[in-house]
Amino acid sequence: MTIGIIGSGALGLYYGALLQRAGHEVRFLLRRDFDAITRKGLSVSSPKGDFHLDRVKGFRDPAEMGTVDLALVGLKTFANQHLVALLAPLMGPMTRVLTLQNGLGNEELLAEAFGAERVLGGVAFLCSNRGQPGFVHHLDQGRIRLGEFSGGLSPFAESLAESFRQAAIPCEAVADLRKARWEKLVWNIPFNGLCALTGQTTEGLLAHAPLRAEVRALMEEVIRAANAQNLSTPIAPDFAGRMIDVTASMGAYRPSMMIDRQEQRPLELDAIYALPLARAAEKGVEMVRVRMLHALLDAGEKTP
Amino acid sequence: MTIGIIGSGALGLYYGALLQRAGHEVRFLLRRDFDAITRKGLSVSSPKGDFHLDRVKGFRDPAEMGTVDLALVGLKTFANQHLVALLAPLMGPMTRVLTLQNGLGNEELLAEAFGAERVLGGVAFLCSNRGQPGFVHHLDQGRIRLGEFSGGLSPFAESLAESFRQAAIPCEAVADLRKARWEKLVWNIPFNGLCALTGQTTEGLLAHAPLRAEVRALMEEVIRAANAQNLSTPIAPDFAGRMIDVTASMGAYRPSMMIDRQEQRPLELDAIYALPLARAAEKGVEMVRVRMLHALLDAGEKTP
Repeated sequence: MTIGIIGSGALGLYYGALLQRAGHEVRFLLRRDFDAITRKGLSVSSPKGDFHLDRVKGFRDPAEMGTVDLALVGLKTFANQHLVALLAPLMGPMTRVLTLQNGLGNEELLAEAFGAERVLGGVAFLCSNRGQPGFVHHLDQGRIRLGEFSGGLSPFAESLAESFRQAAIPCEAVADLRKARWEKLVWNIPFNGLCALTGQTTEGLLAHAPLRAEVRALMEEVIRAANAQNLSTPIAPDFAGRMIDVTASMGAYRPSMMIDRQEQRPLELDAIYALPLARAAEKGVEMVRVRMLHALLDAGEKTP
Repeated sequence: MTIGIIGSGALGLYYGALLQRAGHEVRFLLRRDFDAITRKGLSVSSPKGDFHLDRVKGFRDPAEMGTVDLALVGLKTFANQHLVALLAPLMGPMTRVLTLQNGLGNEELLAEAFGAERVLGGVAFLCSNRGQPGFVHHLDQGRIRLGEFSGGLSPFAESLAESFRQAAIPCEAVADLRKARWEKLVWNIPFNGLCALTGQTTEGLLAHAPLRAEVRALMEEVIRAANAQNLSTPIAPDFAGRMIDVTASMGAYRPSMMIDRQEQRPLELDAIYALPLARAAEKGVEMVRVRMLHALLDAGEKTP
């Protein structure tokens, strides 16, 4: 399979490297890492084993990448205004596009531009970050759940999940992508925002009893909003508790939004907060704590 | 009247200076400002006119202050564990004590130590801050509403309010001190906490539409909790809007908790958040946003 990676951050580099190692032809759109990777290849460190790819196809301009079988999107959502233009040169008549971006609204953007039938989405539960140019560090987790934007379990989604698994990426095709997205929000909404706001890791957050209670209350708000969205089956009541347990097992993790804030990048507030708040409100569900967290994060965006 | 000031911060110095200027014998317990004030007196800058007091009675040790007619408490509530010991030497048989501290719980502490019949409380709506040692800056407002801890409009409270007015302190005696306390919390809870957390002034907060909406929602939570406390009359529904209008007229004000955070002092979280949350919960009222704000502020206390 030829695969184009748009958004070669910690997620795009890691999954792209695994797919190339498994024999796929992977083409990376690169900016910061272009020089390092085209000269010296790409190094992955991982508790599952380090490896190095000597020859990596890097591009500065998507127009030079050619059409691909699969376009994999790892772009930060705050750069979504560029996404369609970046992807367009990769889209041949049979190309499918899989967005692994955070939050809501990404599949809709791609469906509008390229047709709903070509769009897949996935949620990645991955702890990774970029090192020096040419280095990506996989810390923990890595599972992807992917599905068709149009819903249902397609043969393509199932075979794509199988290809990912053969590349050592734990992956599952799901019939209800919307449910998978909301389940991911149950994690993202409390941990990304509270860690970005307080400067505490997930471990620090969970060690502080009042914040741990807020994490759970935020999760319960999101579950209530999710279960008003006509999902195939509701999110189970014990989901919040399980998410907290999984997170506690991850140690002192810095969520992406905390890193974005510390490195003074924009935050993914629309995808992770504003759109979920709007979808909840459309169904008459007011997420009081989520709205306050969003307001506090948004205010921080306006101060230098 | 002999007046002892315990807690000579921006509030204690300002009101003490006005009372001395009006002819009362005022004795200040001083720490940071002791040298400057005993050597060079106390300077007040104010839009109502600057003035300087040449000779000011400053003490380092309350045991040297003697008993007074009125002990006026301006101590930060996070130092309340020292309050009774600091006050005890000032308390003669007829001494009354007036606490102008923030939040809830202060009168109770004094009543326990000295008897409920000797305790008055007041809420000060004052914008002031300390300058160099020996200087205090009055910026805006300054009104005090005071009343008996035991409730009702006593002749003493009325005459005290009259003395304050004669000292150019706008002052009103109220029959329902508890209501005045909760009304002050309607302001303190949103503005102190949100300004401390975001580093924005009241003006910055109100200019940001989502935070302005949170200010109002927080105020409405506090009003709901207040009106479950069996006050003499409920706080009116338009009180939140009027508080926001008054605050907008104050310009770029830095609430005391914001200054405390910036100067890395402890925050007055128990008096302004924990106790009101507990009193609300006792009446079955859950202040969701207030609890989240408290958790975020408390977490900040634990990080350097």
